[in-house]
Amino acid sequence: MVNEEQLGRRNILRQAGLAIGGTVAAGALSACGNDKVEVEKIVEVPPSGPQPSQFPYAQHVAAGYQLNVAAVKEAAYQAYYAGGCCHGAYSALLGHLAGTVGQPFNLLPIDFGKFGGGGVAGYGSICGAALGGALLINMVVADPAAPAPAVRNPMIAELLRWYEGFAFPAYSPTAVNAAETGLVKDFSAANLVNLQRKPASHLCHASVSGWCAQVGVAANGKDKAARCARLTADVAGKVAELLNDYLANRALTPTARDAASATCVVCHPAASTTQPVNSGMACVTCHTDKVSGHP
Amino acid sequence: MVNEEQLGRRNILRQAGLAIGGTVAAGALSACGNDKVEVEKIVEVPPSGPQPSQFPYAQHVAAGYQLNVAAVKEAAYQAYYAGGCCHGAYSALLGHLAGTVGQPFNLLPIDFGKFGGGGVAGYGSICGAALGGALLINMVVADPAAPAPAVRNPMIAELLRWYEGFAFPAYSPTAVNAAETGLVKDFSAANLVNLQRKPASHLCHASVSGWCAQVGVAANGKDKAARCARLTADVAGKVAELLNDYLANRALTPTARDAASATCVVCHPAASTTQPVNSGMACVTCHTDKVSGHP
Repeated sequence: MVNEEQLGRRNILRQAGLAIGGTVAAGALSACGNDKVEVEKIVEVPPSGPQPSQFPYAQHVAAGYQLNVAAVKEAAYQAYYAGGCCHGAYSALLGHLAGTVGQPFNLLPIDFGKFGGGGVAGYGSICGAALGGALLINMVVADPAAPAPAVRNPMIAELLRWYEGFAFPAYSPTAVNAAETGLVKDFSAANLVNLQRKPASHLCHASVSGWCAQVGVAANGKDKAARCARLTADVAGKVAELLNDYLANRALTPTARDAASATCVVCHPAASTTQPVNSGMACVTCHTDKVSGHP
Repeated sequence: MVNEEQLGRRNILRQAGLAIGGTVAAGALSACGNDKVEVEKIVEVPPSGPQPSQFPYAQHVAAGYQLNVAAVKEAAYQAYYAGGCCHGAYSALLGHLAGTVGQPFNLLPIDFGKFGGGGVAGYGSICGAALGGALLINMVVADPAAPAPAVRNPMIAELLRWYEGFAFPAYSPTAVNAAETGLVKDFSAANLVNLQRKPASHLCHASVSGWCAQVGVAANGKDKAARCARLTADVAGKVAELLNDYLANRALTPTARDAASATCVVCHPAASTTQPVNSGMACVTCHTDKVSGHP
């Protein structure tokens, strides 16, 4: 008898003369119907079923499936303290899909997102939580056949645009993480509204610096971490909602560009041959010198 | 007889009463040594050996292995035209590792990087080629046990810092891609030096806009594509070099921050509680209003 547990992540297949996967195999299959057992070999056999190469993974998700947004948020908040913002969002979403959908999500490394914290390796670039979320959207979403419009990239762009205009942090954890000791600010649910700020940028350093300056804390302290842990939950939750809409065939309604940036691209369209710009980002958050006195 | 080809990526295992991976298995193994064959089933069995979950993947790379930098560059240039900058770098590096190392690289989806083009879904954020390269560094590099200093994130940060100061494009393809018809500018090897510019930013929209404005072409035209295809090769080649150094145990020598940015963080350290900044990016590329007249 072989039960399901034995046929799990790392199957140990004990079988006379049969090794699967490129080591020893000559004569093995024909020997299987034979009554002659020569030698016992132990080989590791990964499970059959959906594999990581069978991408994108929406094809492996059952009709009607929806992610549990609340569970994803709490997992993301907690995981922030185990590996940063990108790990928080990435591992919470991947872990949830691994636990509820199974393969191929449970065949992928749960720690893959740790590089993305602090705007990719601490460089202050794209917010790691947003990047972790984008990686999961990319993993799941299958674009329809052309000429139907693309779905995946507009969904990722929507995540970044939504991020710019969302008042972070909004999430209040079910269980406050043990790392949150000695905070200067009051992160209770009742007071959180007084600690919120719309970053107007999806870049880590702009998002973090703007919030820290408003609240009056350091960019490398525990209050910043408490903010980013909750932001990670907010972002992972938004990704779960976007994926749920996609999986339920609800159409995406893109958020419009902010008014100031919309005027910038009138004079700086991508097709210009003098000063073209091809970007979805908010412009004047960084280009503050163009707000006034600019032709 | 079962040959190696049959035991490759998608093994078809024909066997009496035996299905591996959670479907039908009861009594199967004990029946294998029996002379009674009841019914033939066909099941797909993924190969044994290194799996995607066994991360990071340096552990699966043989001692002395080095990537072929020239091959990676040419593949990245060509792949740009099949799916953009992130796909170009990602697929060239992954494909090269899949072809030369094998598992688990050849068990991963080669098209995973297509979302990253144009600074992540066309949003103008981190250069997709740099992101694709960062994903591969993250995939391979194993940090030593603490308290030894980390290796992976400094390597990714170095890639972004190097990008800021490199005069793109530098690569001249072995075979010019068929898509390169009707270019306005001369991309021949002899003239390439006249089309080069250091982006001073790893962000797509800044890198592209600055180059297009200098050269005098649109940000959505064929000359921009020709530039970004060569840039993709340059970035993928740099990643291959960084990985080769790592695999050969050659220590990383980080590129110093530009002088202007180095002065910014004197007054804006991460530990400040007024206007802290935690970033490795060049500052004044975007914050041009802080270059003069700033306290």
